[in-house]
Amino acid sequence: MSNEDADSGTESSGGYVTTGEEFVRDTNYIDNRITRDGIGPEGETFPVEPDRYRLIVARACPWANRAIIVRRLLGLESVLSMGMCGPTHDSDSWTFDLDPDGVDPVLGIPRLKDAYLKRYPDYPRGITVPAIVDIPTGAVVTNEFRQMTLDFSTEWVEHHREGAPDLYPEQRREEIDDVIDVIFKDVNNGVYRCGFAGDQRAYDTAYDRLFERLDQLSDRLREQRYLVSDTITEADVRLFTTLVRFDPVYHGHFKCNRSTLSAMPVLWAYARDLFQTPGFGDTVDFTQIKQHYYMVHTDINPTAIVPRGPDLSNWRSPHHREELGGRPFGDGTPPPPPRDGEVVPAGQGA
Amino acid sequence: MSNEDADSGTESSGGYVTTGEEFVRDTNYIDNRITRDGIGPEGETFPVEPDRYRLIVARACPWANRAIIVRRLLGLESVLSMGMCGPTHDSDSWTFDLDPDGVDPVLGIPRLKDAYLKRYPDYPRGITVPAIVDIPTGAVVTNEFRQMTLDFSTEWVEHHREGAPDLYPEQRREEIDDVIDVIFKDVNNGVYRCGFAGDQRAYDTAYDRLFERLDQLSDRLREQRYLVSDTITEADVRLFTTLVRFDPVYHGHFKCNRSTLSAMPVLWAYARDLFQTPGFGDTVDFTQIKQHYYMVHTDINPTAIVPRGPDLSNWRSPHHREELGGRPFGDGTPPPPPRDGEVVPAGQGA
Repeated sequence: MSNEDADSGTESSGGYVTTGEEFVRDTNYIDNRITRDGIGPEGETFPVEPDRYRLIVARACPWANRAIIVRRLLGLESVLSMGMCGPTHDSDSWTFDLDPDGVDPVLGIPRLKDAYLKRYPDYPRGITVPAIVDIPTGAVVTNEFRQMTLDFSTEWVEHHREGAPDLYPEQRREEIDDVIDVIFKDVNNGVYRCGFAGDQRAYDTAYDRLFERLDQLSDRLREQRYLVSDTITEADVRLFTTLVRFDPVYHGHFKCNRSTLSAMPVLWAYARDLFQTPGFGDTVDFTQIKQHYYMVHTDINPTAIVPRGPDLSNWRSPHHREELGGRPFGDGTPPPPPRDGEVVPAGQGA
Repeated sequence: MSNEDADSGTESSGGYVTTGEEFVRDTNYIDNRITRDGIGPEGETFPVEPDRYRLIVARACPWANRAIIVRRLLGLESVLSMGMCGPTHDSDSWTFDLDPDGVDPVLGIPRLKDAYLKRYPDYPRGITVPAIVDIPTGAVVTNEFRQMTLDFSTEWVEHHREGAPDLYPEQRREEIDDVIDVIFKDVNNGVYRCGFAGDQRAYDTAYDRLFERLDQLSDRLREQRYLVSDTITEADVRLFTTLVRFDPVYHGHFKCNRSTLSAMPVLWAYARDLFQTPGFGDTVDFTQIKQHYYMVHTDINPTAIVPRGPDLSNWRSPHHREELGGRPFGDGTPPPPPRDGEVVPAGQGA
C-alpha cells in the first residue's frame, strides 16, 4: 500500500533507513472518523461529543504539531483534552514518560501502544502520533492525521470557540487540497525522504525535489501573506510545522542543507510571522523537537548526541510581513494563551 | 602522550568516536625535520634539497591543506613535488586512488602506509597526511604537520619564489605562536572534539569552547584585516582551512551549528577575502572535502550519504575587507596560478 508518493506519514516508532532503498512510509492507518452524526461506513459510531475523546500528541512530532495548532486555533481545548508523550521513544511505542509516574492521567496507561492494542489486540503497524482515543473504551479511534485536522474544522464546528477562524473555507477547499498535497509530498515528507534515504541517488532526488518546491512556495509567498489567501488556512499550518523544524533538525540531521531556512528570506519571514501568531509558536518545544530526532534516529545519529545549536532567539525578530496586509484570522480573532498544563516550558521555546 | 589539549592533529585513518569519552588525538608523530644544515638531534640528516622530497597530501584534509597553501604561497612547487591521495580511505591507509592505476607516479606505491612502513616496518599509529617522503629511500621523513609549514617558511628560504611573502616574520613569531596555539586547541581541533565526542557532556563543552573562541576571533578581525597584522601570516592559513570546511562539513556533520559561517558576518567576510586570494581558494576542493568526511566517518554517518548542500557560489561574492586596508602579501606578490596537474577540477571548487 505504499509507494514513492505515499500520501501519508506520521512519526512512528521503529527503524528508518533501509540501505539501497528510498524511504517509503507505511500508509495504513486506523481511519475511523469522529463526525457530527457519528455514523461510519461500517456502522461504527464515533460522534462528536465533549469530553469523550483524548487527543494524544508529542510536541516533537510535526504531524502531531498540526493537531495541536488547529485544536488551539479553533478553541477545542475545553471539549477535547490532550495527552502528551515525551520526545523520545523506543522501537516499541511512544510513552507517557513526562507524566507523573509515567502514566497518562486520563487513560491510565504508560504506553500509547496500549490504546492501539485495546482497539486491535494484534495491531501490527507503527504506533504513531497524533492519535485520538475514545476515553470510555481506552481504544484508538483514529491515527489518520490527514483527515483529523480537517474534521476539527468541519465536524466539530458546534464546539469551536467564539472567533475561531475558518481554516478550511468551503470556497477554497480545492485550492487548499492541491497545496497541501504538494506540501506533503515534497516538503513534509520530503525532508524525511532526504534523511532516511538508503542510498545517494534516493537522497539526491529527494533533495532536488524538496528545494525546487521550497523555491516555488517562496515565489508564491513573496507578495501574498499566506499560502491560499490573505488569511491563515490549514495549508499554512501544514507548511509551518516543517519549516519550524528546518534549522534545528532537517538542515543537519536530514541533510536538507542547500541553505538554512534563516537564509531563505521569504520563507524565513513567513515562518516567523506564523511563529509569532498566537496558536503557532506557543505550541513549539524546540528542546523536545531536537531530542526526538537526534536521540531516536540512531541509525543516522548513532551517538544520540543532541546539537546545542542553532541559536533560536531570532524566531522573535521582526518579520515585516504585516506590510503585505492580510487578516490572519479572517473574521475571527486570535486564540487566548495556552491553558495551564499546556504551556511550553520556559527555555524550550524561543 | 595525549591529553585534552593535545597540541597536534592530522587526519588519520581509523575509528573516531569512543562512547562516553571525549575525542583525544594521538599526538605521536614522526618528527624529523628537513633543515638547512640537515643535521637532526640524533644525527640523522635531512637537508633541504630540491627534488629530493615529495609532499603527500589529500585535498580533503584541513591539516594537509595548510601545507598545500604554504607551498603555493612560497612558490616551492618547483623544488618540492606533491602527491595527492583521494578523499576517502579505509581503516588501513590513505591511498593514491586518484592516480593512474592507483599508484603514486613518483613513489610507485598504492598506499601511503607503504612509505610509513619503509621508515618503520612496525609503524603502529595512524597513517596521516600531510607527510613528506624522502624519494630516494621511499620513507616518510615527517608527518609532524605543525612544524612542517613553519619549516617551509624558515628553512626553505633559498628556494622561495621571488616575491614570496614572509608568513612567519621573526618580529611577530611570539604573537603568531600564541594565536595558532588557541586556534589549534579551540577551533582546528575543536570542531573534531564536537564531532567525535563520545557523550553529550564532552560535546557540549567542546561546542561552547569553539564558539566562544570564534566570537573572540571575530572581534579581533572586526577592524583588522588579518589575524596578526595587516598582512597574511601562518596564523591566517591555519584559521582558513577550518573556516572553509565549516558550512560544508562541520556545521552539520560535526554538529557545530550555533550558526553557519555564512551567518557570522566578520568571519565570513574574512574567510571569503582569503578564499579569493591566490593560493587559498584555488587549493580547495569542496567535493573531495565533503566526500572525505561523510564517507569515511561511518560511525557518525552510517549511511555514508554525502549532502548536496550547501550552495557554495557565495564564496566568490564581494567581501569588502579591502576597505580595512592591509597589504595581503606585505612586500611580496601573489603567487601565479596553480601548476598543471595541481588545478582543482572544474565544479569541485567554488
